[in-house]
Amino acid sequence: MKNMRKICVIVNSRANYGRIKTVLKALKSNPSVSLQIVVGASALLERFGNVRKIINKDGFKITSTLYSVVEGENPTTMAKSTGLAIIELSTIFENLKPDIVLTVADRYETMATAIAASYMNISLAHTQGGEVTGSIDESVRHSITKLAHIHFPATLNAANNLKRLGEDPESIFMTGCPAMDIVANQDLKLEDDFFKKYKGVGPELDPHKPYLVVLQQPVTTEYGKGFNQIEQTIKAIQSIKMQTVWLWPNVDAGSDEITKGIRKFREKEKPSNIHFYKNFSPEDYIKLIGNCVCQVGNSSSALREGSFLGVPVVNIGSRQSNRECGENVIHVENNNEQIQNAINIQIKHGKYKSSKIFGDGNSGQRIADILSKVNLKIQKKLFFNN
Amino acid sequence: MKNMRKICVIVNSRANYGRIKTVLKALKSNPSVSLQIVVGASALLERFGNVRKIINKDGFKITSTLYSVVEGENPTTMAKSTGLAIIELSTIFENLKPDIVLTVADRYETMATAIAASYMNISLAHTQGGEVTGSIDESVRHSITKLAHIHFPATLNAANNLKRLGEDPESIFMTGCPAMDIVANQDLKLEDDFFKKYKGVGPELDPHKPYLVVLQQPVTTEYGKGFNQIEQTIKAIQSIKMQTVWLWPNVDAGSDEITKGIRKFREKEKPSNIHFYKNFSPEDYIKLIGNCVCQVGNSSSALREGSFLGVPVVNIGSRQSNRECGENVIHVENNNEQIQNAINIQIKHGKYKSSKIFGDGNSGQRIADILSKVNLKIQKKLFFNN
Amino acid sequence: MKNMRKICVIVNSRANYGRIKTVLKALKSNPSVSLQIVVGASALLERFGNVRKIINKDGFKITSTLYSVVEGENPTTMAKSTGLAIIELSTIFENLKPDIVLTVADRYETMATAIAASYMNISLAHTQGGEVTGSIDESVRHSITKLAHIHFPATLNAANNLKRLGEDPESIFMTGCPAMDIVANQDLKLEDDFFKKYKGVGPELDPHKPYLVVLQQPVTTEYGKGFNQIEQTIKAIQSIKMQTVWLWPNVDAGSDEITKGIRKFREKEKPSNIHFYKNFSPEDYIKLIGNCVCQVGNSSSALREGSFLGVPVVNIGSRQSNRECGENVIHVENNNEQIQNAINIQIKHGKYKSSKIFGDGNSGQRIADILSKVNLKIQKKLFFNN
Amino acid sequence: MKNMRKICVIVNSRANYGRIKTVLKALKSNPSVSLQIVVGASALLERFGNVRKIINKDGFKITSTLYSVVEGENPTTMAKSTGLAIIELSTIFENLKPDIVLTVADRYETMATAIAASYMNISLAHTQGGEVTGSIDESVRHSITKLAHIHFPATLNAANNLKRLGEDPESIFMTGCPAMDIVANQDLKLEDDFFKKYKGVGPELDPHKPYLVVLQQPVTTEYGKGFNQIEQTIKAIQSIKMQTVWLWPNVDAGSDEITKGIRKFREKEKPSNIHFYKNFSPEDYIKLIGNCVCQVGNSSSALREGSFLGVPVVNIGSRQSNRECGENVIHVENNNEQIQNAINIQIKHGKYKSSKIFGDGNSGQRIADILSKVNLKIQKKLFFNN
Repeated sequence: MKNMRKICVIVNSRANYGRIKTVLKALKSNPSVSLQIVVGASALLERFGNVRKIINKDGFKITSTLYSVVEGENPTTMAKSTGLAIIELSTIFENLKPDIVLTVADRYETMATAIAASYMNISLAHTQGGEVTGSIDESVRHSITKLAHIHFPATLNAANNLKRLGEDPESIFMTGCPAMDIVANQDLKLEDDFFKKYKGVGPELDPHKPYLVVLQQPVTTEYGKGFNQIEQTIKAIQSIKMQTVWLWPNVDAGSDEITKGIRKFREKEKPSNIHFYKNFSPEDYIKLIGNCVCQVGNSSSALREGSFLGVPVVNIGSRQSNRECGENVIHVENNNEQIQNAINIQIKHGKYKSSKIFGDGNSGQRIADILSKVNLKIQKKLFFNN
Repeated sequence: MKNMRKICVIVNSRANYGRIKTVLKALKSNPSVSLQIVVGASALLERFGNVRKIINKDGFKITSTLYSVVEGENPTTMAKSTGLAIIELSTIFENLKPDIVLTVADRYETMATAIAASYMNISLAHTQGGEVTGSIDESVRHSITKLAHIHFPATLNAANNLKRLGEDPESIFMTGCPAMDIVANQDLKLEDDFFKKYKGVGPELDPHKPYLVVLQQPVTTEYGKGFNQIEQTIKAIQSIKMQTVWLWPNVDAGSDEITKGIRKFREKEKPSNIHFYKNFSPEDYIKLIGNCVCQVGNSSSALREGSFLGVPVVNIGSRQSNRECGENVIHVENNNEQIQNAINIQIKHGKYKSSKIFGDGNSGQRIADILSKVNLKIQKKLFFNN
Repeated sequence: MKNMRKICVIVNSRANYGRIKTVLKALKSNPSVSLQIVVGASALLERFGNVRKIINKDGFKITSTLYSVVEGENPTTMAKSTGLAIIELSTIFENLKPDIVLTVADRYETMATAIAASYMNISLAHTQGGEVTGSIDESVRHSITKLAHIHFPATLNAANNLKRLGEDPESIFMTGCPAMDIVANQDLKLEDDFFKKYKGVGPELDPHKPYLVVLQQPVTTEYGKGFNQIEQTIKAIQSIKMQTVWLWPNVDAGSDEITKGIRKFREKEKPSNIHFYKNFSPEDYIKLIGNCVCQVGNSSSALREGSFLGVPVVNIGSRQSNRECGENVIHVENNNEQIQNAINIQIKHGKYKSSKIFGDGNSGQRIADILSKVNLKIQKKLFFNN
Repeated sequence: MKNMRKICVIVNSRANYGRIKTVLKALKSNPSVSLQIVVGASALLERFGNVRKIINKDGFKITSTLYSVVEGENPTTMAKSTGLAIIELSTIFENLKPDIVLTVADRYETMATAIAASYMNISLAHTQGGEVTGSIDESVRHSITKLAHIHFPATLNAANNLKRLGEDPESIFMTGCPAMDIVANQDLKLEDDFFKKYKGVGPELDPHKPYLVVLQQPVTTEYGKGFNQIEQTIKAIQSIKMQTVWLWPNVDAGSDEITKGIRKFREKEKPSNIHFYKNFSPEDYIKLIGNCVCQVGNSSSALREGSFLGVPVVNIGSRQSNRECGENVIHVENNNEQIQNAINIQIKHGKYKSSKIFGDGNSGQRIADILSKVNLKIQKKLFFNN
């Protein structure tokens, strides 16, 4: 027990969990590892689907929880939530004393984890570094990279970017993204009661008829424009007249504006073809997008999981600008007509060929193996490969 | 008034202030700028010399203050202090609504400022980016760079590193370090009562006789080794038998260990040649090191201001490892004999030629001019110069 | 300017504002007072009707704002929000340096204000002390009393309770509740478009036909029972078949449960007689309840403002247990049938005679006058009147 | 295991620990209790003697630790530390899920504990309620009483005050103060090396010759006057010319002023008769004061433990004003001559008769027994005994 390596994984949102679940599974069954799972931020909140319950249902034991979201969903509270999460996580790390902390992607809770671990001289492992997108996530992702000691990029491009950012090549492990593990092993067949399992609000949907999926997050660096942006998408979806699964956005500066736009539309138009959901389990989410006619919005899942699955995607606006993806994606602006046209093109095109750029389905095991054995060091330095 | 650009400068420690003072002066006299000065962290604390009073005495008006140091001086409280500072700064920024926030160097309060400003979509300007050192400062400095929108590196090497880190070349302004402005314009003559103005504890020192200056900070990534490290320095200084000015370390994980080592030594040995001080004004600090026979420790001022002044320097341990400097520096390990030998070599050598690598004395004005006019944008992206 | 007494009023929710507005007005026009208005907690949040906007519209200048609600609406985040508010308020008080801080009633932000002011040696003035109710508010109210230096109880009973609690009789001013000022001076006539001004969701309501008002808050000390409790109320209201104004609860541990119950009911039953609102201006709220056939729930406004207005009230459960009130209130348990019966009795009874136990309509001016002149002292001691 | 009552005791300072240690011992050996010990605030800090180590040495297992002291030692940081402690404690309680939280006396960490437990619907047990003193502690103590569910007053007077404050007589248990348990069972004989075990600074003291003990804390409600107050005490002690044990004050608003006064005096006068100590173990502290010729200052231990031991005491200033005590105390103002005269009177008088007003030596066991069995309820109400 004393010689086991203590690895602490932080889960902060539903998206986080889907992208780290197979790592958790592999760590749990590794006899040389003592797994600590810390759940915080929106993963604890009812209105984001209470991911805590899903984690428990999947057989994982949660070591510690922390409430860290300061309400307001604006730039100020985003900063404040980061600060609060650092305060909370440092006490948790002080008491759990992990050897490695593993953190996912690029949200503010990820930054909070990175800072707490760094200052506490705990090795920081990071997935999804080196990717290129828009929004504040872009800055934050690279900022976290400069604090992290062990990198698990999802793509070759991303791994290459990490080297160019001066990271030690020996600290970079191109493992692919664990989210693809779930995708690769997922039976995509939709049960008859697929939609009935999830409550949400709206008309009953038929899993055996064509449907669209919409998931549009606010762009934090374009705070204040969210209401107009979501209006364009709403108009486009209305005009398509196909049954639609619409997912509420995650908590972020500007979620409020998106939510307000959707709610206003829903109350006023009572759309007969759209059902609004909070959350799907990671597995069901894959089925959901794997069977849709077209995924619309600006979610990274459309470009990542979507590329693996060959889902036709319409990516809107700047949030994913420059993000790597397969041939399955059409990029458009926040404009009703552009969105409509692109959806219609994708409906005609149908499924694309699967792309493996984001992983081959074995990333979780790979990451867990490396974490259990890798040599740990704290002091970083610039390694430019010139 | 309404069209004035609001520039908010954060001062968090005595070192911070010395490295930004001439910028403050130039901003204050710029009619198109509304200057906001926020003072926090150790700059408010009595035991670090109450920098707030010095700032007031210099004729600046402090806009807001914030207490953010969580006591403990260990890795946990360093993280926690970062979190608390983010919480405080976000409320202050919410109320002051600055157009630009300017932050200095690489301490945890700097990181806190960077995060609060970034998430709040406020342009972040940063001095001293791109430099290479050891300690956690190394990671944090580059992490801040990835959040900053406007860079004021101090050296050509540093500017080059910023480009290699993927920063937009148009956002990098090689202005030199404002600390050199004070150095360049400083009359170095020591008044007869130079040492008497500052209380501290220990025997009276004679400014007209040769003296050493010692300033050794903890190395946060070597937390737990500070007591032994300072012991080596103490032994070396004792053996030299020259009158010595010893400065207490700043607040950091491990300050405690250093302080304890010094205090124990002081109480036990009652050294007749060493006087301990908390703080000098930026100007007097320049005089102090500009006239010393040798500066010993691991302070960056020895390599930066020291290079400009041609001060003979003995740099100990890993804290400044790989930092750029002039020919005036001998690097040694945390080892009594190495330190002694190096001091003796430097005493024999005497003053070095001045080096301008860290600035030519006009950096403050340059930075203020740029800040008042530069085009502001929030969304960052990687710019690799291949 | 220098000799003006600085009085800082903290507004944290829509209810807070209605109960302090006439004090703000009187302080604003007092030439010997410099008024500071600090707005925080749910008063800043969109989903509670953004009280900040109403305050601005009423011509007050907000001095400072603070986000302090940690999301979760459970007992843990209620505690955490109190802690965060103390951290924020202490920085604000440090920068504003008020002579007196005035805080309203008994919520956790009130406690946060009381603690920040007490430890900072600022005179604390408190309204609504000495009243008796249920919930955690009961403990918190008396706890705040023991920290407060100046008391403005609303009723004779409350003033008497303060004396029995050992407060200095000279520090107790029986001024009545400023909320009654708005009631007393309010023209109660409902305009034709009264309901149209406020959006909300649900069918159009006719201000000239009989209507019910429902406002039911969670009982924090009965956390976990809210869903069942609200179900009973919903069933009762459904069976009455009268047009109904339903107000969403405030943020508190358990709001979530209430909200969930209501939302579920609304989505499922699509009730054709109920319109859901977030917020009314203080004036319109008075008109709203002043003209209703019966007010149902557990809001203190039903017992306080309701008594003045003679509104027939059905008070449900333990939240207001033992609170003073007029003859207009029927107390029932969380039970569908009891609630129904009581509503029917009240509908038959019609309006009651006005009671002045909570104030005569001049409390705001009285409180402002006292605040501007009262002798300030910090050290408290027990004064038992035996 | 599942049916064991989880009792969480918060230890925040050296004084706290001495006043709860025998309760911890009795709880630890109670088979129906699962004891949780949480250590925070100054109990973790090196400069207050690192109480954590003493607790471990006494054989207790610490469940969780939290750093919560915001540096500054002024009214602002006292408030801020309260807020930070609430944030930390609520996460700890969320994870430990105690049935009862036990908190000691009246400092800001006690208030933080009271608030976190209250809002989280955890039964709050409190020792030392109902006592009368000066300083902010006076207000805070009674404020905590109004939140507490189970009271363990130390004296009959205090128990009576709790009833008058409206507490339920069934919730008040007059157990005496557990600190007296240590006193009652303490062999008072001083070993030859008694003083040598503790480092501190100053001349060697002889435990077999007469000595004074000085412990003077800042009065938070007289913030800014500490420096002058301590000067008066210093002058008086200097003039007495007897060997003296001087204890540094605890962390509080104004500690800084006291510390500064002492340090200045020590550096300047190099007093040959005074030795300065940080901390004694609870047992050694009893020996220390039990054998002194006179205890001088404003520590409550002089009035409490001192009364039991019959120690001649000179109590200075307003901090303990009106506190119950035995005949052993002379009260004086912050005035050199008054202090001197009183010390001389006490030296002449010698030991007093023991008083049992603060406990008979069995309080710890009594409190533990009650905690393990008492019926728990959360909702409080006023119980006036008229």
